[in-house]
Amino acid sequence: MFQLHPALQKKDYVCDLPFCKVLFEDNANCPWIFLVPKKENVRNMLDLTTEERLVLMKEIEIAEKVMTRLFNPDQTNVAMIGNMTPQLHVHVICRYQTDACWPGTVWGVPGIPYLGDSKKEIIEKIRKEFELCLK
Amino acid sequence: MFQLHPALQKKDYVCDLPFCKVLFEDNANCPWIFLVPKKENVRNMLDLTTEERLVLMKEIEIAEKVMTRLFNPDQTNVAMIGNMTPQLHVHVICRYQTDACWPGTVWGVPGIPYLGDSKKEIIEKIRKEFELCLK
Repeated sequence: MFQLHPALQKKDYVCDLPFCKVLFEDNANCPWIFLVPKKENVRNMLDLTTEERLVLMKEIEIAEKVMTRLFNPDQTNVAMIGNMTPQLHVHVICRYQTDACWPGTVWGVPGIPYLGDSKKEIIEKIRKEFELCLK
Repeated sequence: MFQLHPALQKKDYVCDLPFCKVLFEDNANCPWIFLVPKKENVRNMLDLTTEERLVLMKEIEIAEKVMTRLFNPDQTNVAMIGNMTPQLHVHVICRYQTDACWPGTVWGVPGIPYLGDSKKEIIEKIRKEFELCLK
């Protein structure tokens, strides 16, 4: 049975797509979500069939479009790393030439949690944009 | 007309797939290749059509299988970053729990060039494995 790895269970939930769960990274440096394929025992993309990879790529496209429309980044980083959390999760990250990590990658730089209700508001925005995109 | 960004022109050439050029990173820390879609003016995946994304994903699958067969990594990192080099290039990187960057990412850690003929030999191995996979 599919279940989220404990490290991913701690992330905020955004919504479900047909193949992936969408989760949110509480880091005000950059708008940042994850796509987690809802298939059990998936460490990395080699554990997906070709067909599942293509479905994943379609959902990555939706995620990039949602994030781009909302946050208008200078660049979008899409990555499957998984060295520390051994369950496939695709990072989709909005990057700006003015962000704290630019032009480096976001990993290894301590995050800054959102303040007050801003996290809840941003997650709600993302959820609504996914709904619009999936209609 | 498609051409490689100057930063990618400096990389060693491995082979051509139907949609992507395969290039090699001269860093003995981890076996590491790039896939570069042969389409002009592509900054990131948002500049690809849905159909092109799916073709890219199929070639990523081939690349992961080639690298896994040859180098048997503990984990494979697949990433599209492009903050410094504004032409879409997909990193496909073999990672080991014993490599110099584990469990962090490989970016930002200085690379170690291959010694002697070892780079030439490793590129030839990769080229041959792609040939086998594409037959």
